[in-house]
Amino acid sequence: MILPAEFSLIARHFRPLAGPGALDLRDDAALLMPPPGRELVLTVDAMVAGVHFLPDDPPDLIGRKLLRVNLSDLAAKGAVPLSYLMTVSAPKDTPDSWFAGFAAGLAQDQATYGVTLLGGDTTSTPGPISLSLTIIGHVAPGTAIHRFGAQAGDEIWVTGTIGDGALGLAVARGEIMDPTGFLLDRYRLPRPRVGLALAGIASAGMDVSDGLVQDLGHICRASGLAAEIAAESVPLSGAAREAGPKWLATCLTGGDDYELLLAVPPGQSGALLAAAAAAGIQVTRIGHFHSGAPEVMVRQASGEPFALTRGGWSHF
Amino acid sequence: MILPAEFSLIARHFRPLAGPGALDLRDDAALLMPPPGRELVLTVDAMVAGVHFLPDDPPDLIGRKLLRVNLSDLAAKGAVPLSYLMTVSAPKDTPDSWFAGFAAGLAQDQATYGVTLLGGDTTSTPGPISLSLTIIGHVAPGTAIHRFGAQAGDEIWVTGTIGDGALGLAVARGEIMDPTGFLLDRYRLPRPRVGLALAGIASAGMDVSDGLVQDLGHICRASGLAAEIAAESVPLSGAAREAGPKWLATCLTGGDDYELLLAVPPGQSGALLAAAAAAGIQVTRIGHFHSGAPEVMVRQASGEPFALTRGGWSHF
Repeated sequence: MILPAEFSLIARHFRPLAGPGALDLRDDAALLMPPPGRELVLTVDAMVAGVHFLPDDPPDLIGRKLLRVNLSDLAAKGAVPLSYLMTVSAPKDTPDSWFAGFAAGLAQDQATYGVTLLGGDTTSTPGPISLSLTIIGHVAPGTAIHRFGAQAGDEIWVTGTIGDGALGLAVARGEIMDPTGFLLDRYRLPRPRVGLALAGIASAGMDVSDGLVQDLGHICRASGLAAEIAAESVPLSGAAREAGPKWLATCLTGGDDYELLLAVPPGQSGALLAAAAAAGIQVTRIGHFHSGAPEVMVRQASGEPFALTRGGWSHF
Repeated sequence: MILPAEFSLIARHFRPLAGPGALDLRDDAALLMPPPGRELVLTVDAMVAGVHFLPDDPPDLIGRKLLRVNLSDLAAKGAVPLSYLMTVSAPKDTPDSWFAGFAAGLAQDQATYGVTLLGGDTTSTPGPISLSLTIIGHVAPGTAIHRFGAQAGDEIWVTGTIGDGALGLAVARGEIMDPTGFLLDRYRLPRPRVGLALAGIASAGMDVSDGLVQDLGHICRASGLAAEIAAESVPLSGAAREAGPKWLATCLTGGDDYELLLAVPPGQSGALLAAAAAAGIQVTRIGHFHSGAPEVMVRQASGEPFALTRGGWSHF
């Protein structure tokens, strides 16, 4: 039921990650005294080798990505990260160096984002490495941002640049050149926009993980609105521009951005810019919501709709 | 990155399990207002097909076991269960009926134990079905039971009967008869001892998941004590007695009991019996702790040590 060296493996690699309440990972469960008067925000993601990451990806980057995709979900709520629980199911012949690298990546990002490990479970598997991470954060009660709540007339804003993750996957597949390594790095290592104070500013929001257009569709559905974005307003990195216009559709519909997609009332755009400047995060307005059936229109500079061939994204 | 029918699958099978704060499983994260003045207790377990359950086990029993092994960890802390998050990684050809059965089992036990689903993630995998479940409970601050804290002279008590899970696995492997089906049922469906009020009664405790002797060793190590138990005091079910004396060692060292193993000061045994009676749970005294190097001695009725051939359990 357990890896032959499960206990020493935990002691060597995971105990150094344990924070307050984790009881040194020696007990059946962890303890957490919630911050007084705060509402908790919780989310969980699974990552499987061959599905969410490439089996030969560096293990420290896998650990960091696992933590960061969950931090991104907290960021989308405007939540402050606190601690996390994790499961690692790995083949019995997984080398110790893999665990060492995986834990080193987690340690690095724990320091960056101010979180600690609260508990976990390590098991063997006859299949690929399978990971799960449950993260806990907190907000002032009632201030969490949701997918619903956008109003007609609200502006659509995004953080950072869009499409680098999807292009990075294309790099990994050998479909595109990446002389600086920027795109592959962005695929492997998301930048969760933790620390952007959204409460009272955004009327709705989420992180972009399944592609800008599809995820904007989620906000449309949840809020009962249509959305229109201007293709030329969507912020692209220099590397994405280098890739050329034929990759624009990939940028708009590809996954793995982990940027925030926000609905912001026009009167709040100044507050958003101020919050973004305080957090050192770039934000760009790309369109607006209007009343209508839930649908996403991407308009070209010519005024014509941008023809996205990837099916299923624009109608619900 | 997602199952072809991920969204409708979640809507069909998992949304009915969602409770308060889960936002209908439509958002990036869930919300939880912690019970005022309570300390949270959190634990996570992974279960992999072929490792923790048999691939052809009925899916409702897999769901119930996944929830129950985590409830057992909460029970070991004396915690009240609240809600849980879950990940399901399944092959793309997993039939819808598997998910339906899995969710039906969870629904049944949610009702039994008063918990609801708070959030989750559903992904595909090229490997076996891999599950994880993070459960959240709560205790009065500072009252959680730990593995450490046992004192010399404390009595050793267990709930229920010991060994049925390990014998049930032997049944599943065709190594032993089980005319009533009792043993197989106990292997597939643990009885977490939720509701046994341990605060102020037990000085230490844990749930027995890796075998009575090994887990008692954990308490010995954490508490800096030796333990002695009387083999003939260990409570066995009628079915385990039917299996005959050659299976006794399996009962003492096999896993999957999910009973509670408790250190109880002699002056508290009456309180334990009263709490157990109130909860409708059988408890049995099987030995005591004494000062000495962390070690577990199992004594036969003759007074001789019981020779357990399974290595590595009695010395640390």
